[in-house]
Amino acid sequence: MSERQNPYNLGLDKTQANYVPLSPLSFLVRSAAVYPDHVSTVYEGRSFTWAQTYERCRRFASWLAGKGIGVGDTVAAMLPNIPAMNEAHFAVPMTGAVLNALNIRLDAPSIAFQLDHGGAKIILVDPEFSGVISDALARMTGPKPLVVDVDDAAFKGGTRIGEIEYEMAVAQGDPGFAPITPSDEWDAIALSYTSGTTGNPKGVVTHHRGAYLNAVSNILAGNLGQHPVYLWTLPMFHCNGWCFPWTIAAAAGINVCLRKVEPTRIFELIKQHGVTHMCGAPIVYNTLINAPDAPKGNAARRVVGLIAGAAPPVAVLEGAESIGIKLTHVYGLTEVYGPASVCAEQPGWDELAPAERARMKRRQGVPYPLQEAVTVINPQTMQEVPRDGETIGEVMFRGNIVMKGYLKNDKATKEAFEGGWFHTGDLGVLDEHGYVIIKDRSKDIIISGGENISSVEVEDILYKHPAVLFAAVVAKPDPKWGEVPCAFVELKEGASASEADIIAFCRSHMSGFKTPKAVVFGPIPKTSTGKIQKFLLRNEVGSVKAISA
Amino acid sequence: MSERQNPYNLGLDKTQANYVPLSPLSFLVRSAAVYPDHVSTVYEGRSFTWAQTYERCRRFASWLAGKGIGVGDTVAAMLPNIPAMNEAHFAVPMTGAVLNALNIRLDAPSIAFQLDHGGAKIILVDPEFSGVISDALARMTGPKPLVVDVDDAAFKGGTRIGEIEYEMAVAQGDPGFAPITPSDEWDAIALSYTSGTTGNPKGVVTHHRGAYLNAVSNILAGNLGQHPVYLWTLPMFHCNGWCFPWTIAAAAGINVCLRKVEPTRIFELIKQHGVTHMCGAPIVYNTLINAPDAPKGNAARRVVGLIAGAAPPVAVLEGAESIGIKLTHVYGLTEVYGPASVCAEQPGWDELAPAERARMKRRQGVPYPLQEAVTVINPQTMQEVPRDGETIGEVMFRGNIVMKGYLKNDKATKEAFEGGWFHTGDLGVLDEHGYVIIKDRSKDIIISGGENISSVEVEDILYKHPAVLFAAVVAKPDPKWGEVPCAFVELKEGASASEADIIAFCRSHMSGFKTPKAVVFGPIPKTSTGKIQKFLLRNEVGSVKAISA
Repeated sequence: MSERQNPYNLGLDKTQANYVPLSPLSFLVRSAAVYPDHVSTVYEGRSFTWAQTYERCRRFASWLAGKGIGVGDTVAAMLPNIPAMNEAHFAVPMTGAVLNALNIRLDAPSIAFQLDHGGAKIILVDPEFSGVISDALARMTGPKPLVVDVDDAAFKGGTRIGEIEYEMAVAQGDPGFAPITPSDEWDAIALSYTSGTTGNPKGVVTHHRGAYLNAVSNILAGNLGQHPVYLWTLPMFHCNGWCFPWTIAAAAGINVCLRKVEPTRIFELIKQHGVTHMCGAPIVYNTLINAPDAPKGNAARRVVGLIAGAAPPVAVLEGAESIGIKLTHVYGLTEVYGPASVCAEQPGWDELAPAERARMKRRQGVPYPLQEAVTVINPQTMQEVPRDGETIGEVMFRGNIVMKGYLKNDKATKEAFEGGWFHTGDLGVLDEHGYVIIKDRSKDIIISGGENISSVEVEDILYKHPAVLFAAVVAKPDPKWGEVPCAFVELKEGASASEADIIAFCRSHMSGFKTPKAVVFGPIPKTSTGKIQKFLLRNEVGSVKAISA
Repeated sequence: MSERQNPYNLGLDKTQANYVPLSPLSFLVRSAAVYPDHVSTVYEGRSFTWAQTYERCRRFASWLAGKGIGVGDTVAAMLPNIPAMNEAHFAVPMTGAVLNALNIRLDAPSIAFQLDHGGAKIILVDPEFSGVISDALARMTGPKPLVVDVDDAAFKGGTRIGEIEYEMAVAQGDPGFAPITPSDEWDAIALSYTSGTTGNPKGVVTHHRGAYLNAVSNILAGNLGQHPVYLWTLPMFHCNGWCFPWTIAAAAGINVCLRKVEPTRIFELIKQHGVTHMCGAPIVYNTLINAPDAPKGNAARRVVGLIAGAAPPVAVLEGAESIGIKLTHVYGLTEVYGPASVCAEQPGWDELAPAERARMKRRQGVPYPLQEAVTVINPQTMQEVPRDGETIGEVMFRGNIVMKGYLKNDKATKEAFEGGWFHTGDLGVLDEHGYVIIKDRSKDIIISGGENISSVEVEDILYKHPAVLFAAVVAKPDPKWGEVPCAFVELKEGASASEADIIAFCRSHMSGFKTPKAVVFGPIPKTSTGKIQKFLLRNEVGSVKAISA
């Protein structure tokens, strides 16, 4: 068709009738129209229907627009998993603006950087965080955003620092406001800063098209069906709650909001609302499994849990089943809208021995339903590694569920997309089925006497020890071997184990060179999303004395 | 953001890493990679896995490419629901070409028109239809396509007329062929001719983007989940089987192929393969319900059925439940890829009395999950009609699940999209919930003494008569009233009813002016997709004698 004109393109252009930019705002419009009286949100005695949520979003969008917010502007939010945070995922894009959800555990300097870099014009603040936000605002170098307090009757304490309270702004808004739909589905919808380990964090810009497609992918990957009841154990500030605000709108489900991850409250909510789905890092599930009041066996309601953030230890996969939670392991990063790969279940897994089933389910897996590709590639040659389970390469994604790029950072954007793939920085292998298995972040590989040691592998063994609640292994500088593994261990309540016990246990399960040469006991620092903060452990490791090498 | 540059667009362009044109070919690639050993297709003793189907498609695509088939070319298919027809939905687009699926019940002149107008370069032919195709080829005015026979061991009879048999072409093809992915998701994927009632049919051109989105919509609307077992009761030539070849690939399900709609065989296949889903026109379900060997009650396997093509009579909705089939009513046209609206179920329907539940489920409903809008609009003002259940307007769609337009027919394309909506030509109302209810095709409204009579409404009553298997009502010219309703009735096997019986039955259920003034008994002509061919009845109606007026 190179020499003559393609008849299938003649006079067959896009029109308003047959082309609409993909946007997750469409999901809210549809659910409000089709299921107006279905509950959309419940939170501490309050509840809204889909018609009400849509109206509240339009009202707040109209208020934002009245403050001059429009296309290309940024609205930040420092909020826990409360209804206003869910609403912000619609109200902000309805004005054409971009939502910058802030990690509520961040310190003032980090927040000041993000507000300056992202250029937030308005910020929504929960009173619990008004102190750190006041501090951050004072540290900003650029124009300061207007502050909207989002008061929460269920939270005692904190002070208001804003010009207006959220419900007042909602009340002032126009319920008939016509949402701005993106003129291009490539338009930005959210800005999320990565927790960079060196230098300043990078601002990941995502778009309406990707948010739409990954919202649907979540339905397909998690088998959500229609009207799921979704418990908000995963922070909404974390990659926009893996796109779940948009997913639950698309599925016309119920958002069961949750201010804090507290096991007793979670079990109550699961029972009270008939929760069907939830998401979280291994730490969330581990906390539930080890809660004394966890309902077991038949007493437990069946819930589907998506798990990501770290390869789930075998104990977590098994333990979750004992409290009624069937886990699906997904993997992703902020740059791919949260989860963008899934350890797709194969027939027969339910009949496997628990340890073998867990080994299957721990893999990062295959592309998410609407993602194009995830694989392991040699970054030098850009060739896929062989499916031998051994050849290490870099995990890379390609497809529509990949960010636009980093805000105001051409260099990082170009590097991230080099060779036509998004480079995750995670190291992994492909198994014989083409499933991706992450071995480590490149910085988490311990090189001891020239041998690579996967810290994940050592942690796996540690988690098998009956007394271990959390474990993390990092490299400790060593004059003889270069590096040796050092284990940080948090024991279960009431359990005990000595350093020698732990080392002996490891030695009976792995090669000697992989065995930790030191064990440090005590609480392990974790991020708000449950990721163990290894960089803090690395700072600490220098002063740890190795008992053998 | 009109005066300064939007920071969210600077340096954040599409790259190979973060943008891939949407195409249903991606579904096949993913299912072949993730579920290579899952069964994709079963048919009369043959079965294929997803890896095999992908390989077969690549092989045939490579063979097509070797014959010069590429972007903008047309490949036609005159095939029943056999594996090759499913494969053509992937193999043809893999070359960049467009699939023109022909209605296997068409006559030679109609086929000749379509082959000439669509410019088919290759045609796949089942031996059952080699006679009509030979005739059509002889009638063509333009260059004739190369014929590929698709032999079917399960079909006895027919002759080969082609240059090569399909399996030979597949065998000759290269299994390593790299499928061409569309350079633009707006590229055409299929060409389907509508059964126009006047003049020549129009060639509906659909694109990769819409096929992708509606394939996913089917999963969401029908709650297909993962690995559905789909029985091919709906012709694949009909709007590309409502996009289900692509849907089943996306869901990694099983295509249970079926050459002919035969109740005994259908019940066998449902049992043998554990069918979970099927689609069809009311006639398909009616045939099953009235089959003497239909399994009832607990003996029936639960199947979800999508039903469209005509508003399902109450008797069909109720009868289907008695044989284990739970129906979801969908509505659409070739121009919207098959179904693009759904009668979304609301809580409480299962508790309604059967007649009331059927009344709810008979509505055409609301937009399909990923369709933007369907509503009823006054075509003069282009305003939505009030939600009063009475004000008649034209049903119109808008969104991504709307065709590119009509091939080589700018005038029809422009008319179809006038005012930014796709005009269906169907007349309907909106009820108080915003559900679309079709009253009639405009030509199916009977105007008697200045009063509008909905033929659908009269047919509904007729279907309630215990002896009636099929019913159709058309306008009969009348010197006094202008038009009067004339009923065509096909009785159930062994049942009997007189004209007076039928008229008396109607009169006891509706206003006198709506009651048919004549009843004609005998088989009712239907299309291959089960639509009653009213235009044939209209030709006949002039000679029918009315018994009262």
